[in-house]
Amino acid sequence: MTAVESGTRRLGEFTFECGESIDDLQVAYESYGDFEATEEGSNAVLVCHALTGSQNVASAGLAETAGQARAWWNDIVGPGKAIDTTEYYVVCANVPGSCYGSSGPPAENPETGEPWGTDFPPVTVGDWTRAQRRLLDDLGVGRLHAVVGGSAGGMNVLDWAVQYPDDVARIVPVAAAARLDAQCLALDAIARRAITTDDAWQGGDYYGDERPTEGLALARQIGHVMYLSKTSMGEKFGRRAAGRDAVRSFPADRAAAYFPYREVESYLDYQAEKFVDRFDPNTYLYLTRAMDDYDLSEGYEGDADALAAFEGETLLMSFTGDWHFTVEQSESLADACRTAGVPVAHHVVESDHGHDAFLVEPEKVGPPLRDFLADGLDGRAIHDTVSEDDEDEGEADFAPVHNSLFSG
Amino acid sequence: MTAVESGTRRLGEFTFECGESIDDLQVAYESYGDFEATEEGSNAVLVCHALTGSQNVASAGLAETAGQARAWWNDIVGPGKAIDTTEYYVVCANVPGSCYGSSGPPAENPETGEPWGTDFPPVTVGDWTRAQRRLLDDLGVGRLHAVVGGSAGGMNVLDWAVQYPDDVARIVPVAAAARLDAQCLALDAIARRAITTDDAWQGGDYYGDERPTEGLALARQIGHVMYLSKTSMGEKFGRRAAGRDAVRSFPADRAAAYFPYREVESYLDYQAEKFVDRFDPNTYLYLTRAMDDYDLSEGYEGDADALAAFEGETLLMSFTGDWHFTVEQSESLADACRTAGVPVAHHVVESDHGHDAFLVEPEKVGPPLRDFLADGLDGRAIHDTVSEDDEDEGEADFAPVHNSLFSG
Repeated sequence: MTAVESGTRRLGEFTFECGESIDDLQVAYESYGDFEATEEGSNAVLVCHALTGSQNVASAGLAETAGQARAWWNDIVGPGKAIDTTEYYVVCANVPGSCYGSSGPPAENPETGEPWGTDFPPVTVGDWTRAQRRLLDDLGVGRLHAVVGGSAGGMNVLDWAVQYPDDVARIVPVAAAARLDAQCLALDAIARRAITTDDAWQGGDYYGDERPTEGLALARQIGHVMYLSKTSMGEKFGRRAAGRDAVRSFPADRAAAYFPYREVESYLDYQAEKFVDRFDPNTYLYLTRAMDDYDLSEGYEGDADALAAFEGETLLMSFTGDWHFTVEQSESLADACRTAGVPVAHHVVESDHGHDAFLVEPEKVGPPLRDFLADGLDGRAIHDTVSEDDEDEGEADFAPVHNSLFSG
Repeated sequence: MTAVESGTRRLGEFTFECGESIDDLQVAYESYGDFEATEEGSNAVLVCHALTGSQNVASAGLAETAGQARAWWNDIVGPGKAIDTTEYYVVCANVPGSCYGSSGPPAENPETGEPWGTDFPPVTVGDWTRAQRRLLDDLGVGRLHAVVGGSAGGMNVLDWAVQYPDDVARIVPVAAAARLDAQCLALDAIARRAITTDDAWQGGDYYGDERPTEGLALARQIGHVMYLSKTSMGEKFGRRAAGRDAVRSFPADRAAAYFPYREVESYLDYQAEKFVDRFDPNTYLYLTRAMDDYDLSEGYEGDADALAAFEGETLLMSFTGDWHFTVEQSESLADACRTAGVPVAHHVVESDHGHDAFLVEPEKVGPPLRDFLADGLDGRAIHDTVSEDDEDEGEADFAPVHNSLFSG
């Protein structure tokens, strides 16, 4: 048995990047395994969750959450798994602005006894990182063995290397990017508009009343399509009609009955209904804004300059079917590391599973991650886009998608 | 001066594919040029409009429409243009179910004197084709020189070759497909959900009251992202903040003010506001359903079987940056033509402009189209994906996007 701890720490006054502060930042977290000091600093591994994730990274956790917030990386984190909790002390913290116990819009504002709602200060990825640093201080953890995370969590990982370059030996941004592109910014903006134009949103002051679930459902569905790939959707659903039992959970016009209710619709509708039960609409606004706002190069001359102070090793992982955080974006990060002199490998995973691959392909994500945590860039299962032969030329050996549907 | 006619024809009882009928189908249309009988039948060219288009294909038309519904292919259709109205008699009809004068949800139901709303029968692409045939009969046009159209209009073109294979000499489906894929079906379903979950929709009975403009705006924005490409959005907007004058036209939370209102958001918001002024929400439901439902092979053993009776020539045009109607989908159509013995060329246009390319790259679309109308597949500006050398093997010479973000 590995030790599991689940709780909330009160960390005192916290000033957000925007300049606003709150009197007592609360951070909900879980930890797995036993903390040990090592030669490199410690055996501590911080895992950063994605947009709608929680601190409950593995099933042993105690958080009362559901869906992708419950044991969301259980195939990767646990005893004997890639991030082995018998070996590492694994910490995952719910980011400020989220809705799983940390300070955020649905949490109680101590001054009023009511939920903060949209009075909560705007939150950035930088705030996530500083809150995690404060939590780790409170837990007695100094230097980390590694910081690992996917998607928006991967941005959080990158920010660790920028804000606390001396505090971490190895970073693993998975399915990440230095910044979102215009297409993703657009889709996130549409998702937020769906929430704020839901009449039930009421300027964000819906707590104790009907929640803007229709807007949040739309936002989630737009996001869900971003997490899948054209190929995976075609293979999983095609154009098939859903079973007879499947019925829409929202209004439709009379003419709709003449046409099939398709499996792909039914799936997205079902997933959205589950999501709105577990997630807070204001939180969706806050966290997508943080993700959209993130730019590795902000305050620096470029991505390489931002990473220059980091003296650890970097493993980047990306997925060929991912159009949210693309292979090209990770390769661009790898180039920035190379320019900055940061030892790096960019491990490209062949997968049709889109952005979701980092969650649903543990057999491909696990081995390089395990070996990197153990042996750094010498890890056996790690492949790099730059082979030794052509390293001089800086040529990547993944097939660049210059003729892809998007970049062609 | 070429003759321009703009009007509405009452075509009598019309039974829709669903089995329901209405007493007096009205079809709004425009025609440009003079009709002439020719050896092949006539100089008539039917142009099929896309989802939100209208009969007002060229600026000479008289329809009081706006945005993409006004003179939507003015760069292609007109005196001296690719579809030369001094040479061809060009007809464009507003499809049944639409909102530019033909029978559809916002049109008056003669029995009640009120708008049909969602009492209007469900509409299919097949209904569009049969209504166009009826209109052309009424106009005295028998056999057509060509049927040309893009996007959903391209599906309409394909349906002409299936339903009336002897009535048309040449077809040009532009940026079309035999059917939509699961990803596009999903996004269309989310768009419809945005409309029907807008409280103002009221089951479709909103005429004379507040319209569900918020839902329609979201639907349009989702569609708009589908029409652009990742590359074009990156180049056009990047992550830039909008100018100081740009303000959101819908509610936002307090925290939003800390973050930039980006150009890409501002653009999509502005376009959506313009769109909701010119388009009917119920029509958006009806026409996306028709597009989603379309399947070339329905009632046949496959796409080739469906096309087998067509004895004319086919020019397919597709665009490398299009992820809504992909190059692969057009190539699959070309294969079906080859199998069916239908003379075909598949002309692939290099463009970063996404699906919109068929509207915004007239200098690339015009020449092959002009030459095809004049000389059929011998047209000089036409390139085919199958070069003469490897025709035996049926190998396409466009770079297949197997390693693309989507299909990789």
